[in-house]
Amino acid sequence: MSIYRGLIVAVSGPSGVGKGTVLARVEELLEQANPGSVGHSISVTTRAPRGQEQDGVEYYFRTKDEFEQMIKDGKIVEYDQYVDNYYGTPSDPLDEMLSKGQDVLFDITIEGSLALNRKFDVDTVTIFILPPSMAELESRLRGRGTETEEKIAKRLAQSREEIKRAGEFEYIITNDDVDRAARDILAIITAEKLKASKNINTAKELE
Amino acid sequence: MSIYRGLIVAVSGPSGVGKGTVLARVEELLEQANPGSVGHSISVTTRAPRGQEQDGVEYYFRTKDEFEQMIKDGKIVEYDQYVDNYYGTPSDPLDEMLSKGQDVLFDITIEGSLALNRKFDVDTVTIFILPPSMAELESRLRGRGTETEEKIAKRLAQSREEIKRAGEFEYIITNDDVDRAARDILAIITAEKLKASKNINTAKELE
Repeated sequence: MSIYRGLIVAVSGPSGVGKGTVLARVEELLEQANPGSVGHSISVTTRAPRGQEQDGVEYYFRTKDEFEQMIKDGKIVEYDQYVDNYYGTPSDPLDEMLSKGQDVLFDITIEGSLALNRKFDVDTVTIFILPPSMAELESRLRGRGTETEEKIAKRLAQSREEIKRAGEFEYIITNDDVDRAARDILAIITAEKLKASKNINTAKELE
Repeated sequence: MSIYRGLIVAVSGPSGVGKGTVLARVEELLEQANPGSVGHSISVTTRAPRGQEQDGVEYYFRTKDEFEQMIKDGKIVEYDQYVDNYYGTPSDPLDEMLSKGQDVLFDITIEGSLALNRKFDVDTVTIFILPPSMAELESRLRGRGTETEEKIAKRLAQSREEIKRAGEFEYIITNDDVDRAARDILAIITAEKLKASKNINTAKELE
């Protein structure tokens, strides 16, 4: 068997669709099958460390100048600004994990998924998760019990906008059952690694 | 859930690689999960029926003129000539099975796989099966006990030529274990059906 390079699995979907739960299950199943096979991307941030936080553990802590230099050098795959601080995905550690054959799962914004796909191209698979219905999505958002009616309405409107962009992803799955959705993602990961473009060397070595 | 259109699974690989055994296992697993979900393509031939053979059961029996007219009308996806008779895959029954959501598995030549992919495009996935090694392939051919040394040498040379064309397929898998190879094909079938191009309507219906 050839050693496969790892895969970036970039998963997006509307708020409340259950991306986090599904990805936790995917990680559990991947780790069961092959311990140590899932790598974790640590974000870079310009915010100050809090309490016991250590550089390279919770985050890579950098100054604003350093962060902006990383952007210029193409060392940040995608980033966001939040309360005056940058948060981004650094590309070098990601590349290192892939080289070691680790898969890296991302629960990420639509723009984040597409940026990963641009930068890491053949190493990335993009998946959009749909709710079984808008009524179910609404009930999940309501079930959190923490949101005002106004916020729920706003989130649902935003979800509708996001769902319109599902076609920009390579795969679309429906989260009607966490286990089934997780197994769908596992099948996608398996299939992606069997693509001819990634296995042509195996054929050449046989000749 | 939307009703998926079935998928043509066109599998090629060198003689002795175990295509038939792997596909029998794939069919068994698909039927277990969803009885009636696998359709069987019946070939058209110009040879005469033998014994109890019935039209539309073992083969569709047609005259040479009828067969050549079917070719002209684009009703034959791919065909071969053998001992002065034509054998081909008719497209209408295939299209009908796909419409009913049935998957149709083909253990077929390289040219046959590529022809299916040209004619049925998005409905077809092409998979090339590699042996774990050329030594293993040789030992499998020898294990049949029915071939002369000369024939084995000829088959191996032909296998090497065929393996050079693996890159013309969408997926490449290795048959080091029948069950694993079958599960690889199942993962490919699952993933193909989750492609965004086939699920964009599910997203649209939610909006």
